[in-house]
Amino acid sequence: MFLFKLLYSDSKTQARIGQIITPRGVIETPVFMPVGTAGTVKALFPELVASLGFSIILANTYHLLLRPGPEIIKNAGGLHAFMNWKGLILTDSGGFQVYSLSSFRKITSEGILFQSHLDGSEYFLTPEFALEIQLMLNSDILMVLDTCIPYPSDIEKTQILTELTHKWAIKSLEFWERNKKEGKAIFGIVQGGMFEDLRKESARFIANLPFNGYALGGLSVGEPFELRNAMLDIAIPELPEGAPRYLMGVGTPLDLVEAVIRGIDMFDCVLPTRNARRGSLFTSQGIISIKSSKYKEDFSPLDPECSCYTCRNYTKAYLRHLFLAKELLIYSLLTLHNLTYYAKIVRQIKEAVRTGNLSALREDLYLKYYKTSKEEDDGSDVNF
Amino acid sequence: MFLFKLLYSDSKTQARIGQIITPRGVIETPVFMPVGTAGTVKALFPELVASLGFSIILANTYHLLLRPGPEIIKNAGGLHAFMNWKGLILTDSGGFQVYSLSSFRKITSEGILFQSHLDGSEYFLTPEFALEIQLMLNSDILMVLDTCIPYPSDIEKTQILTELTHKWAIKSLEFWERNKKEGKAIFGIVQGGMFEDLRKESARFIANLPFNGYALGGLSVGEPFELRNAMLDIAIPELPEGAPRYLMGVGTPLDLVEAVIRGIDMFDCVLPTRNARRGSLFTSQGIISIKSSKYKEDFSPLDPECSCYTCRNYTKAYLRHLFLAKELLIYSLLTLHNLTYYAKIVRQIKEAVRTGNLSALREDLYLKYYKTSKEEDDGSDVNF
Ligand SMILES: [Zn+2]
Ligand SMILES: [Zn+2]
Repeated sequence: MFLFKLLYSDSKTQARIGQIITPRGVIETPVFMPVGTAGTVKALFPELVASLGFSIILANTYHLLLRPGPEIIKNAGGLHAFMNWKGLILTDSGGFQVYSLSSFRKITSEGILFQSHLDGSEYFLTPEFALEIQLMLNSDILMVLDTCIPYPSDIEKTQILTELTHKWAIKSLEFWERNKKEGKAIFGIVQGGMFEDLRKESARFIANLPFNGYALGGLSVGEPFELRNAMLDIAIPELPEGAPRYLMGVGTPLDLVEAVIRGIDMFDCVLPTRNARRGSLFTSQGIISIKSSKYKEDFSPLDPECSCYTCRNYTKAYLRHLFLAKELLIYSLLTLHNLTYYAKIVRQIKEAVRTGNLSALREDLYLKYYKTSKEEDDGSDVNF
Repeated sequence: MFLFKLLYSDSKTQARIGQIITPRGVIETPVFMPVGTAGTVKALFPELVASLGFSIILANTYHLLLRPGPEIIKNAGGLHAFMNWKGLILTDSGGFQVYSLSSFRKITSEGILFQSHLDGSEYFLTPEFALEIQLMLNSDILMVLDTCIPYPSDIEKTQILTELTHKWAIKSLEFWERNKKEGKAIFGIVQGGMFEDLRKESARFIANLPFNGYALGGLSVGEPFELRNAMLDIAIPELPEGAPRYLMGVGTPLDLVEAVIRGIDMFDCVLPTRNARRGSLFTSQGIISIKSSKYKEDFSPLDPECSCYTCRNYTKAYLRHLFLAKELLIYSLLTLHNLTYYAKIVRQIKEAVRTGNLSALREDLYLKYYKTSKEEDDGSDVNF
């Protein structure tokens, strides 16, 4: 059983509220998925992540394939048991990390040959193998292998790589037909780069395949904010209403509201967790850097409007001290705050959908985060 | 009000159970103090440290003097408020870290001139300044400035440095007389190196001064296990019965029981926390290294006899994976386990004192930790 139920649709925008119903639990959408790259949401006990209201996380197939390897996780009883996470897990296909982390790779029509960035060992990632690994991890939502299209790319390259994505989507479904497991979902991925025709064509192609959900890939790869939103405007209307829509690797709070307005239900992004480790905090006053010397004797909390553990118990002066001293506790404290902020933004977005106030929220987030949304982001999640 | 109350004395050994009563709370002795170097017990929320049963931690004056500086901590309302620690805090004088970390130092009869290991800036640490800083930190138990005597040292050097320690002890008490604060305690420190006569003479000298407690310094600096215990045998009988006795920077579980048998009430040591960050765990089966390839597919907990959060929820295979991936969560998980183990050892020691079973416990810990106790340890607590 894997169901998507539409609960509410905004009359003024494409925004919607829904439920994803699975044997492991029910998720309200729109939903933000914190990134748990290597089987851990960096620096946080999983119970803490859950206590903030997150019910699903993303884990990276590439990282787990290389270390510790899917056999170990399978023998441990799956990733949930291995990492002590009681919620749902969505896994990517590994393709994006091969593209962004691996030093050597070669794409053929069958798959991607690459070398581990850890020890140089060789792997051949095919659409079938990508799903096989995800089944071994016991993922709840599996993503098909797609191709990564760098930004900018010319139309020929974009076309070739998009067609390969389509071919792999079909192969993935053939594999899934033979190997699928009850209660698990498989999501297809739309490509098409930044070309309107290709993007629309890809959305139509993928939408016509019997996936449980539909993702938009190849966005948030360095393109301008406005171009990203234009691609959403083109692609989303092609996707079926009755299935969840997932915008991969996005984004800032502003990106989230822009996507919800256009009909997106799911997101994942390293921003709240990675930025926290770099001392960059999301607050009701916009982004602040804890390193700043102006916080040297600032005994107020990170965000006066935040009620997270960090804001209730620590001052900016203390957090700045820990950050400069590279004290391990700081990564937990700041990650906790940023994820709390994201949980709150998602709650506000849902509330705004229900009350018809999305445009006011968008306005507010535009002032705070437009600059951040414009900045490039390669989406990779390294240790720091 | 700062009181020490003897509750129970072992008939067969010098072991004793007592209470330290302060305005901030009551501590049962023997007590182990986790090290919170720079205003944080590395990688753990302070509430977690308290939940393991620890009611007092040690913080390092040297580290806090250099960064963030005592003025900031004073303005924050003291170190307890700054770091969100509700228990007691004992601070050292800074002398040991000057000795082990500073690149340049010069000892005069007035104090120690040194350069910060962080930025080379110069400080002159005198007996008076060491206490002034600790008062600014709002420490509950302040340690006097003493001299560090390397191991091995010849008798002349040991004598000169021990006499300087004595001179500084008197100066410290003179300063304390003018500046002491109600409810706070000042502890003197015995030196004397590894020479029986000098050690005894130093213990007598310091014991005759009106301190609230008496510490043994200059041990656990690389000397053999047996020599350390011989020094305890010589020094402790010279100390007053009615005041707490503190063995600085010690040690392994075996060192703890050896010291309690000889009449020690208080300890601090970086071993449980630092070793955890290095993947070395104290368990009921002795010390294990989580890196070991034999744990690759070991789905049992670190220690089957431990009921800590880590042992209840994670397997060795997962912990090994996080450790090899340098994932931040591992430092919290392993520190939590090692501190839980130390809390348990201290409970077992107290229980053994009350039931007259210290020799059986000593036997058990001897088998597990004699090798570890023999190894050199410089006591320094760097980030990793
Ligand atoms: Zn907060
Ligand atoms: Zn444990």
